[in-house]
Amino acid sequence: MNKPERIERNVADVMGAIGTAARAAARELALASTAAKNAALGAAANALREKTPVILAANAKDIAAAKDAGRAAAFVDRLRLDETRLAAIAKSLDDIAELADPVGTVLAEWTRPNGLRIQRVRVPIGVIGIIYESRPNVTADAGALCLKAGNASILRGGSESHHSSLAIHACLVEGLTAAGLPQAAIQLVPTTDREAVGLMLKGLDGAIDVIVPRGGKDLVGRVQEEARVPVFAHLEGICHTYVDRGAALDMAVEVVLNAKMRRTGICGATECLLVDKGAHEDYLTELVKALLDAGCEVRGDAAAQKADPRVKPAEAGDWGREFLDAIIAVKTVDGLDEAIEHIARYGSQHTDAIVTECLGTAERFLRRVDSAIVLWNASTQFADGGEFGMGAEIGIATGKLHARGPVGVEQLTTFKYVVRGTGQTRPK
Amino acid sequence: MNKPERIERNVADVMGAIGTAARAAARELALASTAAKNAALGAAANALREKTPVILAANAKDIAAAKDAGRAAAFVDRLRLDETRLAAIAKSLDDIAELADPVGTVLAEWTRPNGLRIQRVRVPIGVIGIIYESRPNVTADAGALCLKAGNASILRGGSESHHSSLAIHACLVEGLTAAGLPQAAIQLVPTTDREAVGLMLKGLDGAIDVIVPRGGKDLVGRVQEEARVPVFAHLEGICHTYVDRGAALDMAVEVVLNAKMRRTGICGATECLLVDKGAHEDYLTELVKALLDAGCEVRGDAAAQKADPRVKPAEAGDWGREFLDAIIAVKTVDGLDEAIEHIARYGSQHTDAIVTECLGTAERFLRRVDSAIVLWNASTQFADGGEFGMGAEIGIATGKLHARGPVGVEQLTTFKYVVRGTGQTRPK
Repeated sequence: MNKPERIERNVADVMGAIGTAARAAARELALASTAAKNAALGAAANALREKTPVILAANAKDIAAAKDAGRAAAFVDRLRLDETRLAAIAKSLDDIAELADPVGTVLAEWTRPNGLRIQRVRVPIGVIGIIYESRPNVTADAGALCLKAGNASILRGGSESHHSSLAIHACLVEGLTAAGLPQAAIQLVPTTDREAVGLMLKGLDGAIDVIVPRGGKDLVGRVQEEARVPVFAHLEGICHTYVDRGAALDMAVEVVLNAKMRRTGICGATECLLVDKGAHEDYLTELVKALLDAGCEVRGDAAAQKADPRVKPAEAGDWGREFLDAIIAVKTVDGLDEAIEHIARYGSQHTDAIVTECLGTAERFLRRVDSAIVLWNASTQFADGGEFGMGAEIGIATGKLHARGPVGVEQLTTFKYVVRGTGQTRPK
Repeated sequence: MNKPERIERNVADVMGAIGTAARAAARELALASTAAKNAALGAAANALREKTPVILAANAKDIAAAKDAGRAAAFVDRLRLDETRLAAIAKSLDDIAELADPVGTVLAEWTRPNGLRIQRVRVPIGVIGIIYESRPNVTADAGALCLKAGNASILRGGSESHHSSLAIHACLVEGLTAAGLPQAAIQLVPTTDREAVGLMLKGLDGAIDVIVPRGGKDLVGRVQEEARVPVFAHLEGICHTYVDRGAALDMAVEVVLNAKMRRTGICGATECLLVDKGAHEDYLTELVKALLDAGCEVRGDAAAQKADPRVKPAEAGDWGREFLDAIIAVKTVDGLDEAIEHIARYGSQHTDAIVTECLGTAERFLRRVDSAIVLWNASTQFADGGEFGMGAEIGIATGKLHARGPVGVEQLTTFKYVVRGTGQTRPK
């Protein structure tokens, strides 16, 4: 038997082929029926359920490698799949199938005096490149959301989750095939070579329309330096909660505790509490005590340290830091305007909240704080597409253009103008 | 008398100061009232009218320099101002004042089951950098549109129009001052050093939110290579008109003539005529004859050359070429699908049109051609914000994200989510 001829393919060739295939798939997908897209999602969900043992075996390889590499327990936990987590991933595909199909929606229509009928119609963006860390569920969620919006996707997951991602991706492809959609509609980059990321950031010769980076500071920095295509930036969530002198103290304690401690590892977690110096001293004391009693480390300014001996002194670097942990920075500010200034200086334009009973103060805060999400008397942990009623999301965009805030299926579309006439020509 | 100390300032310092001032101005402008913004626009329009002799004198310097430099007549013509053109520029500022203020518009609002009231509210983008060629009117139009949308702008015009732009800019600043708005709301880059463009493309240390490039291939190429901030790309308008076998010939001739010849130098001018091989041979003959008789050079494929001896042979580079002149490429295609393929391959996703009486064919074209504007039985020269009823525009964006098609005052805004609660916390 002849040995098969060895075909040398470098990363650039592989990625170029992926780009070409994605572009072709995107043209088909843009015209795919809602029924076909939903059928693919449903079949993929079923495949995930049926292939559970295979996926868990693949995941076990990733877990073992991560442990061998001495990765932290929190990292390994995020990487780990079990039957419950896999069932949740499958359900999320079914949920995405249930969402309304945004493609073809007429966003606006009007008729000009010359009789031209103009429509603004939602259409897919085209090809979306997603670069993410080692969270296997993103492979399914991101691929499925892009598909629902009629986009082809090129997924580049973290190398530590590569076996898990491959196994999950196989189920997505099974769904696409069952529905008669092109397999290249959702492609997983088959190499963990970092050169692949660089090529994606350059757009694969015009094949990629937008890059969605999901990851830490290293990735974000690389994206900002190297990207030659538009980016839906998902930067840090350096969220603030400001407790005003006009706040109801009970509500403030409850909102702040939830904003910080409900889940500390998500981008909507409050990282810095600002307390109005004009508030009664009980405010600072009660807030700090509640956080400490809940197991949160508090790093405070002089006033906060005075409020409770357990408070550690905050360092300069603690303002504007995304702890993603049970740690909070606490600062007293001279009223609303200093709070707004602090947020402008140290925030990441993600999500910021005020607690107050004073309407005027609240409205001033809501108007002046330039963040994707501004909240009044509510927890910053509501920064989430599902909580907004938008269904699944890829993340919270902190950029200002196109997609700001939760990036769900609608944010993964664009529009075009369709103009119908009866022979109109433009006057001189 | 002492000689004043010479202060050395390099381009980077100058541009850094411009960025800082723009960012501060943007924060003020975001809160400025509609009345103040309109007052500034009206006062600037009046200043333009009053300063007409000063502006024309400045323009004369630019014209003389351009002639000395041996620039083409068309270039000099675009550069030239006269009383009529200046009056039109002043009127365009008044027109922009008349437009509805987009800032603060509630785009959507809903209440969640937990009682959270969510609004999506239009807000300014922040700081917009505009890099444009030597067209003095852009200084006024772009600055005014950004102002109306609550954005600070940094204008970098072509060096050949620098004196004219400075004189016009002085009037804009006069308007800002009269209305009590910050002068840095509209800044003109005071140097013609090309390094300034590179610094703007890198975002001036985070000061610039978006770059709007208006210019030819050189600028576009530089932007794509160097830009580190989001771009509203205004690429070429390689517009196609496809005449289908189902077209009414009279309408086709009229629409094609207008699409090519009404004005040949604008981005919405048709650059390539596609004629269905399935149409009666009169179609090609009549269309080509009408164009030739109107003074248009026709570069055609074999069939077009056969249709009229005056037709020159098209070269490979004529497909997908933006002539911006009385020249058109003419190709016969084997029906709708080949027309769509040709446009996908050679078009610039700007504006493309079909002429046909067949509804099914038209709808297939409108759905499948992925351009910012697709037209049925109408001239591509309607690709214009004014013709769309959107008021003044900075241009037609050919990118797919945020702003696609005409970029008017609404497209120069973004949005944020404003969430009002009563102490809601997110459940575990």
